[in-house]
Amino acid sequence: MALPHASLALESALRQVAAEIDRQFDLVLAVPDDPRRSLYEAMRHAAIGGGKRLRPLLVFATAQLFGVDRTCMARVGTAIECIHVYSLVHDDLPAMDNDDVRRGKPTVHKAFDEATAILAGDCLHALAFEILADEATHADPFVRVELLQTLAHAAGPSGMAGGQMMDLEAEKASFDLPTVTRLQAMKTGALISCSVECGAVLGRVPVEGRKGLRGYARDMGLAFQIADDILDAEGDEVLAGKKLRKDGEAGKETFLTLLGLDRAREQARILVDQAVEHLKNFGPEADLLRDIARYTLERDR
Amino acid sequence: MALPHASLALESALRQVAAEIDRQFDLVLAVPDDPRRSLYEAMRHAAIGGGKRLRPLLVFATAQLFGVDRTCMARVGTAIECIHVYSLVHDDLPAMDNDDVRRGKPTVHKAFDEATAILAGDCLHALAFEILADEATHADPFVRVELLQTLAHAAGPSGMAGGQMMDLEAEKASFDLPTVTRLQAMKTGALISCSVECGAVLGRVPVEGRKGLRGYARDMGLAFQIADDILDAEGDEVLAGKKLRKDGEAGKETFLTLLGLDRAREQARILVDQAVEHLKNFGPEADLLRDIARYTLERDR
Repeated sequence: MALPHASLALESALRQVAAEIDRQFDLVLAVPDDPRRSLYEAMRHAAIGGGKRLRPLLVFATAQLFGVDRTCMARVGTAIECIHVYSLVHDDLPAMDNDDVRRGKPTVHKAFDEATAILAGDCLHALAFEILADEATHADPFVRVELLQTLAHAAGPSGMAGGQMMDLEAEKASFDLPTVTRLQAMKTGALISCSVECGAVLGRVPVEGRKGLRGYARDMGLAFQIADDILDAEGDEVLAGKKLRKDGEAGKETFLTLLGLDRAREQARILVDQAVEHLKNFGPEADLLRDIARYTLERDR
Repeated sequence: MALPHASLALESALRQVAAEIDRQFDLVLAVPDDPRRSLYEAMRHAAIGGGKRLRPLLVFATAQLFGVDRTCMARVGTAIECIHVYSLVHDDLPAMDNDDVRRGKPTVHKAFDEATAILAGDCLHALAFEILADEATHADPFVRVELLQTLAHAAGPSGMAGGQMMDLEAEKASFDLPTVTRLQAMKTGALISCSVECGAVLGRVPVEGRKGLRGYARDMGLAFQIADDILDAEGDEVLAGKKLRKDGEAGKETFLTLLGLDRAREQARILVDQAVEHLKNFGPEADLLRDIARYTLERDR
């Protein structure tokens, strides 16, 4: 797909990473000739051939700063994408967001059934940790343990899943700006930050050397979410490949309802500038990270 | 609770382990003062104060053979129990087994709602890996990586979750004895074997020294499942604390339908003898493991 407003370098990186992640999923999700067939087909339906692969791209764009082996990046990117995909599968369930379309295809519980969707999500969840724990991902157990720690924290009740719970409560309560910011920092931000962090872990960057990258990830993740809120209100459902206008219908407070369109756009722009500023100690080798941050404002899907 | 037919040593070990696991859950599931409150309450409802804690007990009974620190055992046992509990929460959902009662209490989706049950399960799943990856569980990263590898494999599509998918298919197809055996080895056996294996990993037993323990876990896990099938057909719902007679209603083939009651009982007895035989290189220090195997035949819940 051609991406309007994406730089040529970003477009090429997105295409390459997407192809590598699809290849990895094709390998780890080879369909067995036994009664688990439909489980694997459901996982493939959810995981292969769709999505922007933003999180794996962030792993690549960060890890390449430190000359990390490409297979390591691909495996870590796939593990993180497993978590992202499982969260979408469960999020789309009738008891949650009740969505019929995702990435332009029927959601897993529509294409298969609810029980298969629950189990496929659970399997992708476990698979993420299986991939990270595997020696093939990184020979050094210190690196593997830190990757596992980072991902488990980002996926759990202090990260993504906790943010989703706050999001459910957002339909009942009326959250203020600090609470919405915290909700989004957990729901979307935790896994985005985890992607950059895992790139740094692969690059063996000591904790005290990760400040700039962490600042970048935090601001870029928040800008991404504000852009997502704007897209939800203003975007095209066909291009987005999913149902939009849901937050408004659910009566949830978002950056858009709290700030208004103009201030939300302005805030996102400021956050992208800050994200880029956090990379000031890097030279042109970090241009891909800079392009990713700028692209969050321009995307139409 | 007094357990009929359990040896005094086993009864005391069960009580101690149950208390330690409850204490660990109470710590890791401290309720935060924010909109995630009901998520944490749902996790506590599912995790605290119920169940036999068979899997943590197996971790203790195995690891104590090798003089492992008790806090390590408790943390690993809690992580494995997180996976077991999350699988029960998701299994009870309306789209899966649609159960209203578990461990004598309303199931999570009954006491809270379906969305909370899905997310609480997902959080317990991630929490398992967060606990194992944490330095507090074991200082040595080699040990932690092996624990993580073992649990992720046992929980995923080649283990418990794959077995659950086969179990769903069992309602549509008519499985033969080898297929039912494989289904159960994955659905229940994988996590039971993982508990013994993690005890051995904590004890730094080299892979070539684990053959007896692995044979024990395999045979004991299968005996446990046959006993479970018998309990499902013959047991008391009040004592069991959950709905019984479900396999028969669903028309599923089980060890009981395939073997008949007498041969099923006989088979379970043979498996328990084999399990005990696998421990022949251990002295009285492995009596707790032997008691656990024998108890699988006697339990009424």
